[in-house]
Amino acid sequence: MAKRIAYLGPAGTFSEEAALLYDAEAQLIPFLSIPAVVAAVQTRITEEGIVPIENSLEGSVNETLDVLIRESNVLIRNEVVMPIEHCLLVRPGTEANKVELVFSHPHALAQCRRFIERCFPKAQMVAALSTAAAVEEMLSSSSPAAAIGTKRAAELYGAEILARGIQDRASNVTRFVILARTDHPATGHDKTSLCFSFNEDRPGLLYGVLKEFAIRDINLSKVESRPTGESLGRYIFLIDLEGHRTDPVVSEVLMNVREKVDFFKVFGSYPRYIEQK
Amino acid sequence: MAKRIAYLGPAGTFSEEAALLYDAEAQLIPFLSIPAVVAAVQTRITEEGIVPIENSLEGSVNETLDVLIRESNVLIRNEVVMPIEHCLLVRPGTEANKVELVFSHPHALAQCRRFIERCFPKAQMVAALSTAAAVEEMLSSSSPAAAIGTKRAAELYGAEILARGIQDRASNVTRFVILARTDHPATGHDKTSLCFSFNEDRPGLLYGVLKEFAIRDINLSKVESRPTGESLGRYIFLIDLEGHRTDPVVSEVLMNVREKVDFFKVFGSYPRYIEQK
Repeated sequence: MAKRIAYLGPAGTFSEEAALLYDAEAQLIPFLSIPAVVAAVQTRITEEGIVPIENSLEGSVNETLDVLIRESNVLIRNEVVMPIEHCLLVRPGTEANKVELVFSHPHALAQCRRFIERCFPKAQMVAALSTAAAVEEMLSSSSPAAAIGTKRAAELYGAEILARGIQDRASNVTRFVILARTDHPATGHDKTSLCFSFNEDRPGLLYGVLKEFAIRDINLSKVESRPTGESLGRYIFLIDLEGHRTDPVVSEVLMNVREKVDFFKVFGSYPRYIEQK
Repeated sequence: MAKRIAYLGPAGTFSEEAALLYDAEAQLIPFLSIPAVVAAVQTRITEEGIVPIENSLEGSVNETLDVLIRESNVLIRNEVVMPIEHCLLVRPGTEANKVELVFSHPHALAQCRRFIERCFPKAQMVAALSTAAAVEEMLSSSSPAAAIGTKRAAELYGAEILARGIQDRASNVTRFVILARTDHPATGHDKTSLCFSFNEDRPGLLYGVLKEFAIRDINLSKVESRPTGESLGRYIFLIDLEGHRTDPVVSEVLMNVREKVDFFKVFGSYPRYIEQK
């Protein structure tokens, strides 16, 4: 039986494209929110779930980080990095110079703002809840309309692609993580993701933790901080380091860091993604 | 003549509320994007501009950080911290149990998801480009509708407030910064905001910079990192420290940090916001 993977639907979103890139043989099951994808994995509806965690332009996906920080029973088992190519979709036969409305999720509209302002200076932008929903709304619009969406959405919904790669900045990639009930065994080229926070706020706390990594020459591929959501100025620190949590030096540093912080959680160890050619 | 302040419009958004909290006497001029607010200050259309920089639930406002990092000629001159209270607005006379659509910006919909799911399980959520635009769309909707917006939007648009404080988490505050062509003279209770980044990626670089603050016992009220937008894994670090850039110890640490990094920029020094009772 094919492996089942929960993804952030509907079909035709970048999450579905990433799931296909990760495992083209799997049975993909759409869920309507990131917490729902996580619940599907926790309750064994699916073996794995895929969610976006970070975009090179927009930064971290807060909902995914919240889930990793708060929920138990799911770990990161793998990662996929995918280039994001926004396309301009229309109902087949629609002429570009007739377009009056441009539908998309506000993030996609923001990422393509310069293109729209140049090529469709008079068009009105209309917000939608996802790029896939935008395509549906565009197809049923009574005024001539376009939508910003994926190539895959064009196939699924029978839309025509008027333009490709319309995002303002070319280097737009999203990292997705694959969640499962266990993380990945060591492969020799691994990453470990973790978070920690402090109950108090005094000079040098973060410095004291980074020292543990620096004196062991462990490279940090990501150092991020985000508000805890409780008040401004309280942060959770998120770190990706090179190595597997079962490597002796990594295991030692994790033990030492755990003693210096008030909250500590390892999200899992997994193979580093190697870009496909 | 009253001071002119550019804000992120339209009228009825949280940015307008924050501008009124900062200076109720000023002449407020709405602009339709964060870069437009900045341009208004740079070109002297207004003396100051106010933009959101950080929310306790959602984290940093990327567009504001981008502008501070990239644009010259604007500095942070002050800050305001404002509690965010989402309200449920309807056309006067609309009954709650008839509501079929709920309009708002996707962020506001996300922040009030639990409330909507409990109280309006059958209502459909509809995305809008701002909370103020949501109120306008709600008022002209042909189906019975509600919008998530501000108390001020209810006054401005003549809507009725059905419920207040409907956000899922009570502690929802946004920090706004006031931008001007110069920062603020020292007051004795100041903050300094700055950013830096490295061209290379090797163990211990961030550690080496944090050490400069730690050995001088300078408290960092914010340590954040965000992707540079060029590729994943490249970060710009953003720091708020306690003190004014003209204080001798702060001035010394800034000089030392500048030598250790490849890109360095001070966003300005300004009085720390003291919460109003």
